[in-house]
Amino acid sequence: MVVPAALQYLRQNQAHRLVLVGLEAEIRQHLPGNELPERLSIQPASQVVGMDELASNALRKKKDSSMRVALDLVKSGEVDGCVSAGNTGALMATARFVLKMLPNVARPAIITALPAINDHTWMLDLGANVDCTAEHLFQFAVMGSELVTVLDDLPAPRVGLLNVGQEEIKGNEQVKGAHELLRKSDLNYIGYVEGDDIFMNKSLDIIVTDGFVGNVALKTSEGLAKMIKHYLKQGFSQNLFTRLAGLVSLPVLKTLGRRIDPGRYNGASLLGLRGVVVKSHGSADVNAYCNAIGIAVKAVQSDVAARIERGVNAHLTNRPIA
Amino acid sequence: MVVPAALQYLRQNQAHRLVLVGLEAEIRQHLPGNELPERLSIQPASQVVGMDELASNALRKKKDSSMRVALDLVKSGEVDGCVSAGNTGALMATARFVLKMLPNVARPAIITALPAINDHTWMLDLGANVDCTAEHLFQFAVMGSELVTVLDDLPAPRVGLLNVGQEEIKGNEQVKGAHELLRKSDLNYIGYVEGDDIFMNKSLDIIVTDGFVGNVALKTSEGLAKMIKHYLKQGFSQNLFTRLAGLVSLPVLKTLGRRIDPGRYNGASLLGLRGVVVKSHGSADVNAYCNAIGIAVKAVQSDVAARIERGVNAHLTNRPIA
Repeated sequence: MVVPAALQYLRQNQAHRLVLVGLEAEIRQHLPGNELPERLSIQPASQVVGMDELASNALRKKKDSSMRVALDLVKSGEVDGCVSAGNTGALMATARFVLKMLPNVARPAIITALPAINDHTWMLDLGANVDCTAEHLFQFAVMGSELVTVLDDLPAPRVGLLNVGQEEIKGNEQVKGAHELLRKSDLNYIGYVEGDDIFMNKSLDIIVTDGFVGNVALKTSEGLAKMIKHYLKQGFSQNLFTRLAGLVSLPVLKTLGRRIDPGRYNGASLLGLRGVVVKSHGSADVNAYCNAIGIAVKAVQSDVAARIERGVNAHLTNRPIA
Repeated sequence: MVVPAALQYLRQNQAHRLVLVGLEAEIRQHLPGNELPERLSIQPASQVVGMDELASNALRKKKDSSMRVALDLVKSGEVDGCVSAGNTGALMATARFVLKMLPNVARPAIITALPAINDHTWMLDLGANVDCTAEHLFQFAVMGSELVTVLDDLPAPRVGLLNVGQEEIKGNEQVKGAHELLRKSDLNYIGYVEGDDIFMNKSLDIIVTDGFVGNVALKTSEGLAKMIKHYLKQGFSQNLFTRLAGLVSLPVLKTLGRRIDPGRYNGASLLGLRGVVVKSHGSADVNAYCNAIGIAVKAVQSDVAARIERGVNAHLTNRPIA
């Protein structure tokens, strides 16, 4: 899937070059006529990081993995950014090790866009950090704002802090602390939001939460979308009449599918690193993978890492960062 | 909505009695012919707790609210259980104050069933506790197991602990601690589950998580379902052709709607209290509200509170409960 996606991306974008990193023989198999087109090259890597492999294992024992070699290319400046559909934990750990963190960034974070009534809403962190302090959450807001400013061409993206609505004194200590930091900052902070705001709030661009909650929210929506798709499929294949109904409804269902297709927003950015790293969904198709490449290109062109570095420094509070 | 639901419930269930608690004149307005049917009575209460009112305010200043009076009736034994569609935080706080907690229960929890590929999956806590220790999560599993054993007639409901999948060492400290407690217990513990398992895991009956994560997961799915409904409606009302397609697809869409309708499982139980308290969704219709009454009746008939008390005591670990 990566090779056809690279070929498609190069056809559609004449100004860029791509380097495919991995097992050379396998890559060549997927090239039409076994030939490398212009602006595409191969960087051999002999090892593969498994999708369930421990990050520490990948880091210690897979020094010639495609992931590691690709990140080494970013580090050495031979390429400007890296896109991977591999193991997220290993990618993050290897990227932190090879590229290092930006100065004053306490924790890296993962951000992606989700389909929403408002076209899309960005959410971070999606799983890089399970335990976050108020300061971490605040930095996520800063980093997310910098990325979204550039990717969506929004001068002041609206930031919401994910919370629950039922509590007497809402939220836990970290969330309350982050709320205070955000209120006092010059970010475009709109206040607390709840789970349904991810999809239904039209006045929101970025949702900030810790990696545990963000990951659960993301997977929960993936699960629900899968279940609805399953029931629709089942419902329309019941009998001849429902099959016919399905047939005439196909355009509407396809539009719905496109609208809520996470592939349309494929490409989660790893923020806080000295370099551009984008994670594609493991089950992305060619178009979705092209999206992820496009996000990496846009992040490189706008020098997001430098923007984040400046943004984080400008928002440094007096407290030490844990 | 409560009055017609009560009337419908009594028509369908000849053995039970209901007491409507609230502003008498207003209740009477909704009774056909202004008359009280058999097995229905009114207990006047002069105050109303607002949906956004602080729980502490309701507790201190609304001693004659319908919520408070209804819970007083449970306390005095005049009724066996209470169903409310009011402010969740106020209901929980008032129930804790009036009924008290069961011995050795550290924290009450809120549990409900969600539509799933496997018909439904129960999840707790949904917002009563934002900061939970491992022991709290473990007790939620014990309490949830007791309730589901009774409500679903399952001798050993399968319990999963909500976690994220990407981390090197998965989850935060509380989740890891709860995992160890559950592994060593005689509960039917199946291990860690992720967000998508709420809807797509066929081998799971109960998902345990803290109230922050549970509340976000619940609201996230409500938001996504709302968005999909919105897009379907919009898609089918585009033009004459799509309207026709919508018409022939109506049976399939209605079946889908019924399957994923949260009203079908309306009725969140407040666990850990000395008495039966069920929270109905604020936007429940008559059928959904009848469901909530049915859950309260079943909980009373099987003496869930006593079962939970026994269950919690049987699973008491040596450590003090924070």
